[in-house]
Parts: sequence; C-alpha cells; structure tokens
Amino acid sequence: MPRGHPGHFYLFLCTMNTDLFSFVRLQAFTEAVFLKMGCSPSHAKMATDALLAADLRGIDSHGVARLSGYVRLWEAGRINASPSIRIIHETPSTAVLDGDSGLGLVVAQEAMDIAIKKARDAGTGWVSVQNSNHFGIAGYHAMMALTEDMIGMAMTNASALVAPTYAAEKMLGTNPIAVAVPAGKEAPFVADFATTTAANGKLEIAQRNDQPIPTGWAQDENGVASNDAHILKKGGALLPLGSEKEQGSHKGYALGSIVDIFSAVLSGASFGPWAPPFPSYVPMPEHMPGEGLGHFLGAMRIDAFRPADDFKSNMDLWLNRFRSAKPIQGQEKVYVAGDIERTMEATRMKEGIPLVNDVVKDLETLATKFNLSI
Amino acid sequence: MPRGHPGHFYLFLCTMNTDLFSFVRLQAFTEAVFLKMGCSPSHAKMATDALLAADLRGIDSHGVARLSGYVRLWEAGRINASPSIRIIHETPSTAVLDGDSGLGLVVAQEAMDIAIKKARDAGTGWVSVQNSNHFGIAGYHAMMALTEDMIGMAMTNASALVAPTYAAEKMLGTNPIAVAVPAGKEAPFVADFATTTAANGKLEIAQRNDQPIPTGWAQDENGVASNDAHILKKGGALLPLGSEKEQGSHKGYALGSIVDIFSAVLSGASFGPWAPPFPSYVPMPEHMPGEGLGHFLGAMRIDAFRPADDFKSNMDLWLNRFRSAKPIQGQEKVYVAGDIERTMEATRMKEGIPLVNDVVKDLETLATKFNLSI
Repeated sequence: MPRGHPGHFYLFLCTMNTDLFSFVRLQAFTEAVFLKMGCSPSHAKMATDALLAADLRGIDSHGVARLSGYVRLWEAGRINASPSIRIIHETPSTAVLDGDSGLGLVVAQEAMDIAIKKARDAGTGWVSVQNSNHFGIAGYHAMMALTEDMIGMAMTNASALVAPTYAAEKMLGTNPIAVAVPAGKEAPFVADFATTTAANGKLEIAQRNDQPIPTGWAQDENGVASNDAHILKKGGALLPLGSEKEQGSHKGYALGSIVDIFSAVLSGASFGPWAPPFPSYVPMPEHMPGEGLGHFLGAMRIDAFRPADDFKSNMDLWLNRFRSAKPIQGQEKVYVAGDIERTMEATRMKEGIPLVNDVVKDLETLATKFNLSI
Repeated sequence: MPRGHPGHFYLFLCTMNTDLFSFVRLQAFTEAVFLKMGCSPSHAKMATDALLAADLRGIDSHGVARLSGYVRLWEAGRINASPSIRIIHETPSTAVLDGDSGLGLVVAQEAMDIAIKKARDAGTGWVSVQNSNHFGIAGYHAMMALTEDMIGMAMTNASALVAPTYAAEKMLGTNPIAVAVPAGKEAPFVADFATTTAANGKLEIAQRNDQPIPTGWAQDENGVASNDAHILKKGGALLPLGSEKEQGSHKGYALGSIVDIFSAVLSGASFGPWAPPFPSYVPMPEHMPGEGLGHFLGAMRIDAFRPADDFKSNMDLWLNRFRSAKPIQGQEKVYVAGDIERTMEATRMKEGIPLVNDVVKDLETLATKFNLSI
C-alpha cells in the first residue's frame, strides 16, 4: 500500500504514526465497502458523504475509523443495508420515521430531507426517528439545511457511557447536538458537540497514547474523579458537560436528557441505558423499551420569521463581531462554532486526511474481506 | 411590618438574615405594584404569576428581588406597561411577535400562547419575539405547554455578562434554556438553566456575603480565572458552561450563541453585546442592531409524533429509571431536571418564601412609593 508523508502538522496527532490519504481515495474505498454490504448506489454515496465529512472536519473518531464498526454491525444483523425507510406518523410540521434498522448515516439524511420539505410548506419541520443506528457527525445532517436558507438541527441518542450528576451508573450516551445557521457573506455558524465535557473520541486518543486524561472528563465506578483514560472499561463513566455539580454538570446532564427524550422517547426508539450499543460484541440490552437508536432532526425556514436578506445581514454582523472580539492573553483570536472544523476541511481536502496506523490496518482488513484495493 | 420566622432551613440562605412571607401576601403585593405601573388586570396577574414562580421554585434572583428593577425600567421609559403586542409575521408553524417594549413576563406568555395554538393546528409552534424585556424564569413559560400535552421550550437573550471561549470581552447574556416534558404518573421533566457555569444570581449571593467564588465561574479583564465575586464590575466576565476550553467551554459558548441567534437575530431584536441591559442606570448600547430584547418560545404536540399515552408511559419509565439510578457515595439520590425546584415549590407554598433583608427593604420602598402596604 502506498503511503503519504506523515501528518505531523496536526498537533493532536503529533505523537502518533499517521499516513495521509487523499479525500477521493478514501471516498472511493468507503463507497465500495458500502456497496459490498448491499447498499443501493444512492445510499452508498449518502453514507460515504456523511462519514467522510467527519474525517475532513477533523472529527477523526467518527469517520472511516468507524467503517469496520458499521460492517461488524451489518454482519451481526443489526444494520440492514437495504432498509425500507418510511414515515409512520405525520402532521404539517412533524413526522416520525422508521429507519428499518438502516445505516443512521442514511436514515438521518432521509429524515432531514423530510424536515426541509415540511419547513417549505409549514415554516418548520421536525422529524423524530426510531429504529436507526449511529448517524456519524450530527453537524453533517444539520448543515443540509444551509443551502435551503434554513436553520438546521440534528441530535441523536447513543449507547450509555455517561453518568448523570450524582449517579454511579452509565445512563446516557454522549448525545450530541448540532445547529447550523446560514449567513450572508460570512461563513455560517455550525455548532456540533457532545453534551459531555469531552467526547469519547478524545478518550480514545488518550487510550492509544496511554496518557492520563484531565480531571473532569470521567469518574470511576464509585463516582470519584478519575484521570485514567481506560476507566470506562473498569465501571467508570464519562461526565456531562460541566463535570461536577458546582461547575454546572446538572446542565450538561439536562441537555443529554433532552437529546435522549427528543430522539428516542418521542419517536419510540430505545432510550437511556437501553440504547443499543455501537460495538457489535456488546450484547443488546434486555427489555429494550423501543426500536433501535433514535434521532431528532429539524429545519426552520429563515423567511418563516423574517426576510432572509435581513436575517443574513444581521447574522453577518453577529459573526463578524464575535470573530473580531478581543482575545485573551496567549490566544490569537476568538472563534465562532464551526470555524476550526471549516479550516480543517479546507486543509484536508487539499493536503489529505491523516489516518493513524490502527485505522489504516482496519481499512486494509476490510479491503481483504471485500476483495477491494485501497 | 410583621415578620415571619427566619428561613434557616434553606442551606444557601443560612448565613443571611431572612424573613418569611406567605405566597399569597407576596402575590397580592406584586399584583398591586404592576397595577400601579398601569398594567391591565390580566397583565398584572400574568406578570405576578411568572415572577412568583421564581420565588416558589427557589430561583431567588429572578423573583420579587427583581420587582424594583422592573419598576425602575418602567420609570426610565424602557418598559411599556400597556403594550400593543402583535404578530408581525407568521406561517402555519411560526410567528414573530413585537412585544412593544412590554414586560417580558407578559410578552413571553402571549408568545407561548401563540406557539401552543399553532402546535394544535400544525403539530408544532415556534415564536421568536422582538422588542421585549426580561421575562423572568424561562421554566415558567416552557411549563405552560405541560397541561396541553405538549413539550414546551423557552429561551431568551440578556445583557452581555459572558465572555466567549478565548475572549476578554462580555459578548453574551447568561441566555437560559428551558424545556418542559409532560409525563403520565411521574412528575414532569423541567430543565431550566443558564448556559453559563453559574447563573449571575449565584455570584450575587457570594457578593452579599463577601465570599470568594469557585474557580471556573468567572474571569478577570485579561481572561485569567478569578475567585472574586465582584470581578464583573472590574472588567471581568462570567464563563460559559464548561468554564475553560479543555472542559468544553466552547460548548457552553455555542449554546449561549444559539439562544442569542434564535431569540434575537431570528426576531429582529438586539443581540450579542448590544442586548439591552437590565439595570436602568446602565445606558443603552449605541448602534443597536435590533429592537429590544428577544425570546424564543416553542411548543410540540406530543401526539404530532406518537399517541400521547404511549409517550407518557415511556416517559414514566424514563423518569423512574433515572430517579432510581445508583447514587455516588455521599449522595442520597439521583435527581431529574426540575425535581429540586418542584420540592422547593411545595415547601415554600406551605411554609412561606424567605426573603433576604435587602429584598425586604426594596419591597418596603416600593410600598411607600405606590402607597401600598405589604
């Protein structure tokens, strides 16, 4: 396998061995894998676009690093590569979608399409999804609204890794929220974050390097703060945004709860500690109260509130004012949500996507399995 | 003035002198003050209900402690006691409301009524509000949806007190978010929180007691962490939920931004550092880009997604599972959002509302001004 030059310009990868892959190369390979799984050409393309958006934007834990995980879920019969995705209930501004165990990467896009269509007619559209799977990065789905002059929102529940404030149990997923807001001349606002202090992907990086994690990210099985990156395997849990009560962890816990309720209780998916696990070797929870994983997608037409040009002009002023705010000592500038990811996307599209050796090996194994070349 | 017994059973008030007032006594007095300002009887009642909900629920910074502040804004001509609140734009599921500089306590309820009405017809209703003022606690407005078998949401922007991640400027308000979710037999889920690590009210308590504040709540004018409860008057700022970058403050900053955009940019209110200040002695910002303060209210009909009974039964299971989660050592139980406030409400409705001496003096001054007795 040909190798690119080391991706040492990415600070957080500086201690790891990486190889650079061009976007088009990873795109072709990923699409081929989804086709081999039995996805239709359009679904394979949709899934690939969503998955690679993570690699481009620097959210390495949610890109091709997860491809073999999706394949294992398909092999375990937990992902249906040719789902019949269908609306099971609707009103002018809402729908519930049954994902038929399809790839969340695809199901969420179908849901967002429906939300956008409903927003055209009713001003806003809100789709809660049951019977789905991991949908990649929330931001990709939220950003689908931008070109429609709409605000997009996306959230999903996920396997339980997070302890509520005062709890010594994993009860919630990292349950991300994404909100994308269009602008005029300025680059858009794109928030996309786990409702925990740190995303699980950051723990995985520390695990690979066998480094301690900062206080406030995780606790042990008794609820005591832990700096052990492997603590989740020892009965520990991630902490909600805020880390501890005095620093507002009950707010992060509330946010994670809201995501769980909107995505899973509202749709009839499985929720809380009963959310289906991502790793295929983890058995499904007993007595699941609903069907599969849940998502919640929303679209609000800007001109359902005020003329789009007025909004965009104000949004430009907002973005410009925040981007030019006075930075603290030691920092060059103040960022708006999505700025760092957008810069990363431009860099990686041009210079390539650095993959750590474990991920490269994973892709090579997939290539062998499916008789593909990478 | 007759005095009740000291409210020493409230931990966080234990170092202060307080007097107990019955709910009905404060209700009658507050309503009388709003009537003296020129509010209509129905508006005076609405404003009183919203204001006292804060005192009952233990959010002491947002109850009658603010009454004199509202009066001063009215005296300064910034609050219109008899506003013509009107819809200036709408679609089946959205509206923009002009609050005509009315009390936010009232304007937000009118907005929520419209959101609920639209949700009845279109499944969901979303109302962005311009030209309003401080609306009290967000939770009160969100909870209006509960009796309608709807999920309620409320948010508002506010005077700039918060520095974005990496910024040495106050750019956002404490911008709260509230989400209320109905249940069946279990008490409902009611989240209501500032998108900062600590609400400004907590700083005010430390200021009164001349106590230091925990690290992570605020920074000085250079962006260095500060334990000085008075730091905001010295050029400092509150910190977004997460406190610092490594602990996820960019997520709290994104949440505060979303509230600002939904409440103010979407409605045409004034936003970011240009949000109108609550204290009447602070001059209005120059070059305000919009009209007054902004809110965003939403209602989603449960049965626009699935049969309400199915949802409520699942929600009961959710609530029961979280309330019975295993607590960490040293804690008796795990709470769900709203549990502590609901218990407080029951206690205070029965035993009375403790007010610190400064607030009592404030109310006595108002009584003299308006020739009322308290």
